[in-house]
Amino acid sequence: MSQEELSTIRHSMAHVLAAAVQELQPGTLFAIGPSIAEGFYYDMRTPEHLTMEHLSDIEMKMREIIARDEDFRREEVSREEALALFAHNPYKVEIIESLPLDATITLYRLGTFVDLCRGPHVANTRMLRADAFKLLHLAGAYWRGDETRDQLQRVYATAFYNVQDLEAHLLLLQEREKRDHRRIGKDLDLFSFHEEAGAGLVYWHPMGGRIRHTIEDFWKKEHLKNGYELIYTPHIGRSWLWETSGHLGFYQDSMYSPMEIDQQDYYVKPMNCPFHIMIYRNDKKSYRQLPCRWAELGTVYRYERAGALHGMMRVRGFTQDDAHIFCTPEQLESEIYEALRFSLNILSTFGFRKISAFLSTKPEGKSVGEEHRWIEATSALEGALQRASLEYGTDIGGGAFYGPKIDLKIEDSMGREWQLSTIQLDFNMPERFNLHFIDRDGQAKRPYMVHRALLGSLERFMGVVTEHYAGAFPLWLAPIQVRIVPVSMKFTEYAETVKRYLLEDLRVDIDDGDDRMQAKIRKANELRIPYTLVVGGRDQENNTASVKVRGGEDKRDISLEDLRAFLIEKNASKALNLN
Amino acid sequence: MSQEELSTIRHSMAHVLAAAVQELQPGTLFAIGPSIAEGFYYDMRTPEHLTMEHLSDIEMKMREIIARDEDFRREEVSREEALALFAHNPYKVEIIESLPLDATITLYRLGTFVDLCRGPHVANTRMLRADAFKLLHLAGAYWRGDETRDQLQRVYATAFYNVQDLEAHLLLLQEREKRDHRRIGKDLDLFSFHEEAGAGLVYWHPMGGRIRHTIEDFWKKEHLKNGYELIYTPHIGRSWLWETSGHLGFYQDSMYSPMEIDQQDYYVKPMNCPFHIMIYRNDKKSYRQLPCRWAELGTVYRYERAGALHGMMRVRGFTQDDAHIFCTPEQLESEIYEALRFSLNILSTFGFRKISAFLSTKPEGKSVGEEHRWIEATSALEGALQRASLEYGTDIGGGAFYGPKIDLKIEDSMGREWQLSTIQLDFNMPERFNLHFIDRDGQAKRPYMVHRALLGSLERFMGVVTEHYAGAFPLWLAPIQVRIVPVSMKFTEYAETVKRYLLEDLRVDIDDGDDRMQAKIRKANELRIPYTLVVGGRDQENNTASVKVRGGEDKRDISLEDLRAFLIEKNASKALNLN
Repeated sequence: MSQEELSTIRHSMAHVLAAAVQELQPGTLFAIGPSIAEGFYYDMRTPEHLTMEHLSDIEMKMREIIARDEDFRREEVSREEALALFAHNPYKVEIIESLPLDATITLYRLGTFVDLCRGPHVANTRMLRADAFKLLHLAGAYWRGDETRDQLQRVYATAFYNVQDLEAHLLLLQEREKRDHRRIGKDLDLFSFHEEAGAGLVYWHPMGGRIRHTIEDFWKKEHLKNGYELIYTPHIGRSWLWETSGHLGFYQDSMYSPMEIDQQDYYVKPMNCPFHIMIYRNDKKSYRQLPCRWAELGTVYRYERAGALHGMMRVRGFTQDDAHIFCTPEQLESEIYEALRFSLNILSTFGFRKISAFLSTKPEGKSVGEEHRWIEATSALEGALQRASLEYGTDIGGGAFYGPKIDLKIEDSMGREWQLSTIQLDFNMPERFNLHFIDRDGQAKRPYMVHRALLGSLERFMGVVTEHYAGAFPLWLAPIQVRIVPVSMKFTEYAETVKRYLLEDLRVDIDDGDDRMQAKIRKANELRIPYTLVVGGRDQENNTASVKVRGGEDKRDISLEDLRAFLIEKNASKALNLN
Repeated sequence: MSQEELSTIRHSMAHVLAAAVQELQPGTLFAIGPSIAEGFYYDMRTPEHLTMEHLSDIEMKMREIIARDEDFRREEVSREEALALFAHNPYKVEIIESLPLDATITLYRLGTFVDLCRGPHVANTRMLRADAFKLLHLAGAYWRGDETRDQLQRVYATAFYNVQDLEAHLLLLQEREKRDHRRIGKDLDLFSFHEEAGAGLVYWHPMGGRIRHTIEDFWKKEHLKNGYELIYTPHIGRSWLWETSGHLGFYQDSMYSPMEIDQQDYYVKPMNCPFHIMIYRNDKKSYRQLPCRWAELGTVYRYERAGALHGMMRVRGFTQDDAHIFCTPEQLESEIYEALRFSLNILSTFGFRKISAFLSTKPEGKSVGEEHRWIEATSALEGALQRASLEYGTDIGGGAFYGPKIDLKIEDSMGREWQLSTIQLDFNMPERFNLHFIDRDGQAKRPYMVHRALLGSLERFMGVVTEHYAGAFPLWLAPIQVRIVPVSMKFTEYAETVKRYLLEDLRVDIDDGDDRMQAKIRKANELRIPYTLVVGGRDQENNTASVKVRGGEDKRDISLEDLRAFLIEKNASKALNLN
């Protein structure tokens, strides 16, 4: 079945949902009820506030309506008729009034329920399956997504063509719930948030810090190997900087209000670029110094609505794995190719192999930069994509006003797509800051500037990989790589010996608590520790250990020497599997 | 000669200076003229603005006055007499009025010049040496150091007992000028400041970034080896955090004004501690989890007066190499000892071996924390100092209101002392945030909290080491460790081969510019590059290079293999010498 057909079913189900609520709670005001990627929802204002308890009654009523073999009846009406019909409903009135004067206005009727709707719908409720839908949860939703307007309730739901598909989807949702990075972050003590000290700000705990440090260390080493330099810039900048960059104009909504230092306004940075540009401008650059590839793990602060914040995925402060490349026109294509190649390498190290690329080109409306730059740069991006043998979609007109870009999306182990890497041309900043380089011919020329992030931000990336691995991090990333469990207190000393033997190269600990052995093994399992070494009398005699491999088979009587060599190799090679 | 005698000479010279200016510019208003560590100064307001050109005339007049064999004549006067005598001089009037009513007011006369002064002075100008003083430079200075009050001119000068001492000192000043980290920072392209984007904010360039990354990498690895965990916390926090910590009370002058997010005040952090505490509080801690040793390279922002800013030494944003230790009373002494030992190890790696320790004890006035804590903690600090066999001075009553501390000062290659490491107890924060741990006996108890920094801040430390090494960084820190200079363009390819051979382990570049070989070698010298490899025809045939060792002897026909092994060993061992 095509995505369009499924979408039509879900949209029709949204009407069934509304019709059911109307029968159960007459007087309900309905706002909008679209189908979405994995189901549908309806925003509404019921006389009696909805709770989870109401949902099963609504589901029953929906089944009843489906069983009525009711037709979905399309009707065209005039603007005046539409306004009269929905006079009691300010949301529908607002929608009607926002339509162009010459728009054809259509209604869909289902029994006594009528909705303003473009369709399409199924012809009759007979085409809907009473056993293949589910109301999932309730959420608050502002009318038009605007916090200053009415708060409505949103009923989230999903529907499929048959019960098997529904059940598979519900299993997937359960699995996602289990993999929710906020839950795993708490279980593994990786990070926390503290609303009272500021919403959307991440505190990385020791265990999360181990992962972050490992990622940063890998990231920095790879950058140095790939010809990047690491730079460090301030987190605050005077208004002059943001006026010159233009951010105070086109980006102010995402910036925090200024603080005052010596009668001057300073802003916490929402982006690193103006600071990197100040370093570029610090001396006169010759073509011999280009390309400059400057990377920084730069922490930026941006406004997000409180309601939009979501764990590590959407925060107010985050560390971009940022880099800026300044280069000559001749260097552009190969620089972009190298950035692409580098990006693919880094992502595949984390096990992301399904990667899709998108090219966004010049927008229709306002843009900056000479035409020849748009042409040159877009063709450099295309050339690099082809050279990297990447299939890509093109979002024609989807680029920013200041330049075209390539986005890379990865698919995680749950089949969800995440946009991580971006390679973005910028024609605006070099103009605004009047950047130059002296070319071979002695002429001062404008360099190309490329913004580039591979992982996006460390916070969001941490959220993504936590869910991707379901907290079972590969050895090289696991906060505790090896846990030693002595069979009894008698073997604590041998456990210490084993720890010392492994500690220089690996993150090892001992569970020397009061629990019994089985409880300790269970605990190690809950913490998704890759290797749990159980050590007892025979091991002490023979310098061996029993190894419990996370998700794998147990091994007995492994010599410490072999074990150490095996673990060091796995760790160094950043292997994704443990066997 | 004692420091007191030298100080008396300098103080007397300050009067001679003032007497000379009075003769040259009658009507000058004098403010204060003390002796200082390396000389003396006088703050004054002359009818004609002083420039460097005036200084030699003033020096001539000073010699003339010294030659007069004039007595310094002490006189006691009443408050009224003093006020009448200095009625024309608002600065002296303000000083007199600030004296206690029962103070003995003394004057010193030198010819027609009279100054309000406690003395002591030399008896006669005969005891001053006309060839052993020098006026050094002019600076602006606010009356009472207050930017809202009159701006005066400060004449800086120095004086010694004999001309040899003066000359030695002037040489030292020259050497310091050459070693000024601001100058070296520019010459080696390490970092910059950009007033227009905000004063006192450091931009680390690629070359400075290489040094910083190397230091950070070393610092992190050593912390992990020494049982610390790395954590990461936000740069901004809601007012609740700073009210709870008390910083908005006792530290507000150093904090920037708030920014507003969703009608809440947020502050850029001047300290990391409240954030670390939030992580401590995140779960109930058991004695089994202590000690917590949590380290962060945390960038903080603090207000400094514009006039107080000085290169990397005094900035408005800096990255503390911070750590907090939370421990039980039983663990305190060994934790402090370990922190001390760790600190001494880290400092000695940079070549700082002359280290002096200072213990600061409970202040006389207001303080927080129970008496038994002050006693326990002070004795733990003393015990740790003794165990580390460190001689130490005691600053009785010199501790902060919230706890005693140990400071470590290093002596640099110019004989100057810098306070780098601090190990500071804090009785205040655990109270304010109500921190606990559950002890062995099941009771909830208050942990000890220790603030600790080893290098102080990366910025200031960078300034200190840059001056200490005069930019000639040891191999492991040098931004460019090896430069290859081909004898002519013909050998560029061989140079590339050599570079590739060394590049995986070292920071290597090639000077393939248009300059002649000698100019390239000079350039490498100016950049203080540790090893410059000159490669030509014979080298290409034999796989060798000629090696110019910075400040050492040249070596010829060194095989690349030997060279590589030698360099890798030097680098890995963090050797301070190059031979």
